[in-house]
Amino acid sequence: MSKVTVSIVGASGYTGGELLRLLLLHPDVEVKQVTSERFAGKPVSRTHPNLRKRTALKFSKLEELTECDTLFLCLPHGKSSTQLDRFTSLSDKIVDLSADFRLNDPAQYKEWYGGDHPAPEKMTEFVYGIPELHREEMKEAKWISSAGCNATTTILGLYPLFKAGVVDRERTVVEVKVGSSEGGNSFNEASHHPERSSCVRSFMPTRHRHTAEMIQELSFGEPAEIHFSATSIDMVRGVLATSHVFLNDSLEEKDIWKIYRSAYGDEPFIRIVKEAQGIYRMPEPKLLWGTNYCDVGFQKDPCSNRLVVVSAIDNLMKGAAGQAVQAFNLMYGFDETAALEFPGLHPV
Amino acid sequence: MSKVTVSIVGASGYTGGELLRLLLLHPDVEVKQVTSERFAGKPVSRTHPNLRKRTALKFSKLEELTECDTLFLCLPHGKSSTQLDRFTSLSDKIVDLSADFRLNDPAQYKEWYGGDHPAPEKMTEFVYGIPELHREEMKEAKWISSAGCNATTTILGLYPLFKAGVVDRERTVVEVKVGSSEGGNSFNEASHHPERSSCVRSFMPTRHRHTAEMIQELSFGEPAEIHFSATSIDMVRGVLATSHVFLNDSLEEKDIWKIYRSAYGDEPFIRIVKEAQGIYRMPEPKLLWGTNYCDVGFQKDPCSNRLVVVSAIDNLMKGAAGQAVQAFNLMYGFDETAALEFPGLHPV
Amino acid sequence: MSKVTVSIVGASGYTGGELLRLLLLHPDVEVKQVTSERFAGKPVSRTHPNLRKRTALKFSKLEELTECDTLFLCLPHGKSSTQLDRFTSLSDKIVDLSADFRLNDPAQYKEWYGGDHPAPEKMTEFVYGIPELHREEMKEAKWISSAGCNATTTILGLYPLFKAGVVDRERTVVEVKVGSSEGGNSFNEASHHPERSSCVRSFMPTRHRHTAEMIQELSFGEPAEIHFSATSIDMVRGVLATSHVFLNDSLEEKDIWKIYRSAYGDEPFIRIVKEAQGIYRMPEPKLLWGTNYCDVGFQKDPCSNRLVVVSAIDNLMKGAAGQAVQAFNLMYGFDETAALEFPGLHPV
Amino acid sequence: MSKVTVSIVGASGYTGGELLRLLLLHPDVEVKQVTSERFAGKPVSRTHPNLRKRTALKFSKLEELTECDTLFLCLPHGKSSTQLDRFTSLSDKIVDLSADFRLNDPAQYKEWYGGDHPAPEKMTEFVYGIPELHREEMKEAKWISSAGCNATTTILGLYPLFKAGVVDRERTVVEVKVGSSEGGNSFNEASHHPERSSCVRSFMPTRHRHTAEMIQELSFGEPAEIHFSATSIDMVRGVLATSHVFLNDSLEEKDIWKIYRSAYGDEPFIRIVKEAQGIYRMPEPKLLWGTNYCDVGFQKDPCSNRLVVVSAIDNLMKGAAGQAVQAFNLMYGFDETAALEFPGLHPV
Repeated sequence: MSKVTVSIVGASGYTGGELLRLLLLHPDVEVKQVTSERFAGKPVSRTHPNLRKRTALKFSKLEELTECDTLFLCLPHGKSSTQLDRFTSLSDKIVDLSADFRLNDPAQYKEWYGGDHPAPEKMTEFVYGIPELHREEMKEAKWISSAGCNATTTILGLYPLFKAGVVDRERTVVEVKVGSSEGGNSFNEASHHPERSSCVRSFMPTRHRHTAEMIQELSFGEPAEIHFSATSIDMVRGVLATSHVFLNDSLEEKDIWKIYRSAYGDEPFIRIVKEAQGIYRMPEPKLLWGTNYCDVGFQKDPCSNRLVVVSAIDNLMKGAAGQAVQAFNLMYGFDETAALEFPGLHPV
Repeated sequence: MSKVTVSIVGASGYTGGELLRLLLLHPDVEVKQVTSERFAGKPVSRTHPNLRKRTALKFSKLEELTECDTLFLCLPHGKSSTQLDRFTSLSDKIVDLSADFRLNDPAQYKEWYGGDHPAPEKMTEFVYGIPELHREEMKEAKWISSAGCNATTTILGLYPLFKAGVVDRERTVVEVKVGSSEGGNSFNEASHHPERSSCVRSFMPTRHRHTAEMIQELSFGEPAEIHFSATSIDMVRGVLATSHVFLNDSLEEKDIWKIYRSAYGDEPFIRIVKEAQGIYRMPEPKLLWGTNYCDVGFQKDPCSNRLVVVSAIDNLMKGAAGQAVQAFNLMYGFDETAALEFPGLHPV
Repeated sequence: MSKVTVSIVGASGYTGGELLRLLLLHPDVEVKQVTSERFAGKPVSRTHPNLRKRTALKFSKLEELTECDTLFLCLPHGKSSTQLDRFTSLSDKIVDLSADFRLNDPAQYKEWYGGDHPAPEKMTEFVYGIPELHREEMKEAKWISSAGCNATTTILGLYPLFKAGVVDRERTVVEVKVGSSEGGNSFNEASHHPERSSCVRSFMPTRHRHTAEMIQELSFGEPAEIHFSATSIDMVRGVLATSHVFLNDSLEEKDIWKIYRSAYGDEPFIRIVKEAQGIYRMPEPKLLWGTNYCDVGFQKDPCSNRLVVVSAIDNLMKGAAGQAVQAFNLMYGFDETAALEFPGLHPV
Repeated sequence: MSKVTVSIVGASGYTGGELLRLLLLHPDVEVKQVTSERFAGKPVSRTHPNLRKRTALKFSKLEELTECDTLFLCLPHGKSSTQLDRFTSLSDKIVDLSADFRLNDPAQYKEWYGGDHPAPEKMTEFVYGIPELHREEMKEAKWISSAGCNATTTILGLYPLFKAGVVDRERTVVEVKVGSSEGGNSFNEASHHPERSSCVRSFMPTRHRHTAEMIQELSFGEPAEIHFSATSIDMVRGVLATSHVFLNDSLEEKDIWKIYRSAYGDEPFIRIVKEAQGIYRMPEPKLLWGTNYCDVGFQKDPCSNRLVVVSAIDNLMKGAAGQAVQAFNLMYGFDETAALEFPGLHPV
């Protein structure tokens, strides 16, 4: 069978680089073009030094982009939606890694992103990109919108509980601890090493835009309230979400186990991590660097009806490029784990 | 005036070392003895290398301890309460930095520490060690019990709100991010650098013992529920508490300002940190390394009645040795900030 | 073709875990047994949490070890040489990752390891494990002794120059900066996070045992003096060697280029990294985490005949498990890069 | 006695902030003005958040600068020398923390800084700012030029040996490991946290400008060759210099001890750190954060005539602001340690 040809638009950033790393080793893929206005003509190792000696690809300008089977879009917020026609004319299938098409509802978009959506009629044509929630739709999909990294971590931690309807939908409090790669490769005062090193910075205590995705995906008929905060810590890759939910009924930990097993028992990229002893009892993002896993664990508070759910991912992988490749595999009927086999490092 | 003589029991650990550092520079204090069974006879710089060339003190054995004006106890949990008579026979005033006398109620002690208190009748004779809550009592106190570091951070963040009665007493969720020095100087698998570096470890999602102190100090007549979790991150010193409280009434940020200013406006070691721009908008523990400050900030969620309170300290200072020296200063009527003037470093 | 059966002795440590990670994905290998006295009966994910959901293997006791095609030995220093007969009775081919058989000369062993070698007659039967130096011997080898991580980094940096005879053999000064995983998974005071974090610790300014390997491999007829020091820094994986050599003749950088290209031009795992601009001009170990690469760069001092050579590896990969798998591939005639394709992450 | 009035020119950067922190607590000093073009009119806590609640000072524009007793200049390279007349008209005494007046010889300036010095006739009027080398001159000095941080670390490590004439003057190799604050507070691609974190970057293998200062100060009649390299590591503050010198005669460690004791025995800010056991055997920069100490240790290679000297400082303190205050104290006859008493933190 001939390989699927793909191109990456906006490939000089961290997400683009990660995607390129994965796709270069995908057995059924040929990477055709990778674009970058700033680095056009330069070898990709100029910004992705890990790819030295791995490919002879050079960056192209966006205007040089030609037809291919699938386009991966890694553009800044607001750039995919305004150029969608151009991209759909070049490629049948699209995986957009920006925030442009994550929400289905133009009103919600306006509320959280502060302006009218440039292509509101297209919003519902994109499948929201978390495979564990939308696998069947993806198999038929043309266009997929990858989920936000913090949204992915939180949603995968909470989805089984909200779907089962066992939690108080108004009381959930979530705090994510995030690494610096979430901010991309643009340097600024906040990312300056002397300032960012050892930091514990409550950079978004309220109003994080990813909250809108959580509400969208966790509301099954009745709206879910997610009280969300985000804190930067001294880490490059990784997200850990600590979610505090309050159970409606007096469930025990074994009941919670059943709910998670039933939801995730067959998932190739979700592991329930909850051990009785040792230092790896709960999910930890550093074990997931470079992998497509989402690890989920939980602990019931013996003093109250609170359940603490802990979920972790690598934001550039399961939170971006890995998730996109997993969705791409589903679209084409490839092995869902193709190009995503790396098990992660320990120690690291 | 002759100097106050003090000795430190259990001085080879991190808290003991920090206390020694402060007291050596205290203008009204003479450090008489510092005990360590393991390092008896060795110079203190053997375990506190920052004190090289600063003192000729050597560690003594506990059995060599003689009388002094004030004893600071830095023993492991359970050791102060069983030897209290010995210590009170040697010194009129005692500042205990262990957990033994933080709680007033034997029943609570049993619930959280899992056994009967060895000296229950003494529990109410210790003043709980947060000066901002118990300053007047401290001025008359003989015995003081320094508060837990996580408890201090959380309580100082929430105290004005709970005292003012403006929050839903059942819904508060708190998560602290803590550094590795909280675990003291005993090495173990969890503190092994390859494992602890870059970690985000949900080591105590529920049932942290410091919760008992929070409930004790934040319940004004009616019990407060604090849904508490603790997460280790890659940092040596520092605690950041992110507290999510739900307001009873529709207060605005300026109302919250008033409550905090009224509570803390004259406090020498509390700073309200809430700026409109820049990267230092909220409290950050690294700015507090070596200082006795507690920085407190907050942000109101525009979508709900949630208020996110962010408070930070250096766990070895305001969370232990600094708090103890501040209380000691109050006991003796010294300037409350004596020996605590260090403003902290930036960058670091 | 049936798969090659391998077992790992001493598989609960960091090197054993890394080897297991690689071999589980090797297309021509079946991992039969992995031993650990302490964790016998437990799943391997107990100490290698990255391998959750990847294998059902459990640790066995050493006494349960049965025959296989190749044994990988990851025992502490001194354990392989005293049990060699046992191991050779079970397996035809052996790759020893300890220091026991790295040196060829019993006198050198005694000088650097401080005792008589238990099996001196076997010392020359092991091929020293750096494939770039001993590829042809490996193709015929039965027994291979993997090189020390610091030795590998230094030797690969300097080998082309010493072989070409262009440097003053008495003046070379080398300093390696190493991560904490070099110390293995045994925790101690030096590896305690509050002490090890942010450290720059000159832990072995002179007399590092790996020096003996460097001298052995870099002396082509005439003895090479290597003035070696090792410094610990705040990093888990990785070694960077900064080697200062003094050129005999007035070579220019382009001459040096030729020497390196000629030596390494066809090497699958060596990359010459020397760029004119950008922030990735020189080798950096973090780009190599999880990979089998050794990156080498250099700069000529315009004020003197000094050439600074910079070489970097991941100590657990090219410095241990990766090097061992590369050698194993050569022994069996497999593709030299089998199971070693991971390109490394960026950023990280 | 009335206080000495001082102003800081270029006070919004890291060095300026550190100087301000020190001078605010100096018993004999009144800080009059601090300038910053970018932050004029803003409180100093805008860029120095550690100084919140410590001062009401605001930044002024340079054009608003008025007379004072001493001016501290913290301007970028090349700005002090072109405005020197302006500054000398405002203040009798000047401490310049830039590189402009460190070298005495215009030819050397041109060689290392690549242009003619704007005020060559003033070069010899500045005293080079390391008090341990130039204390007596400082007592009479009007103008002082603070030394480079890497130069200070290296020179203080090597000065006793070069002065005593016991080392081969052509063979010294020095490598410094430096933190990110050396680069100041201007962010760029190299300081972007995802790139700078965990880095070991050989950013200046040869031709570091501080080498010129080392040669100037270590050549006693005959020129010293210093083969210098600088490597960035994951640390904010601190420099560790590892210097490899080759002894002319067969000196033993006790002879070296004598040389160092004789040179530094009475120095308030130099500690010889060389212990037989424990983890603090050698100097470590993190123990010096915030202090004015330079710790120096050494180890003789038993296999050769190499002596490894290890020296450490906090680059912003002994390498900049602390050194400047120490020199200032000497100029005015104040206690040399005034405002420099902070002993440093442990752990940190």
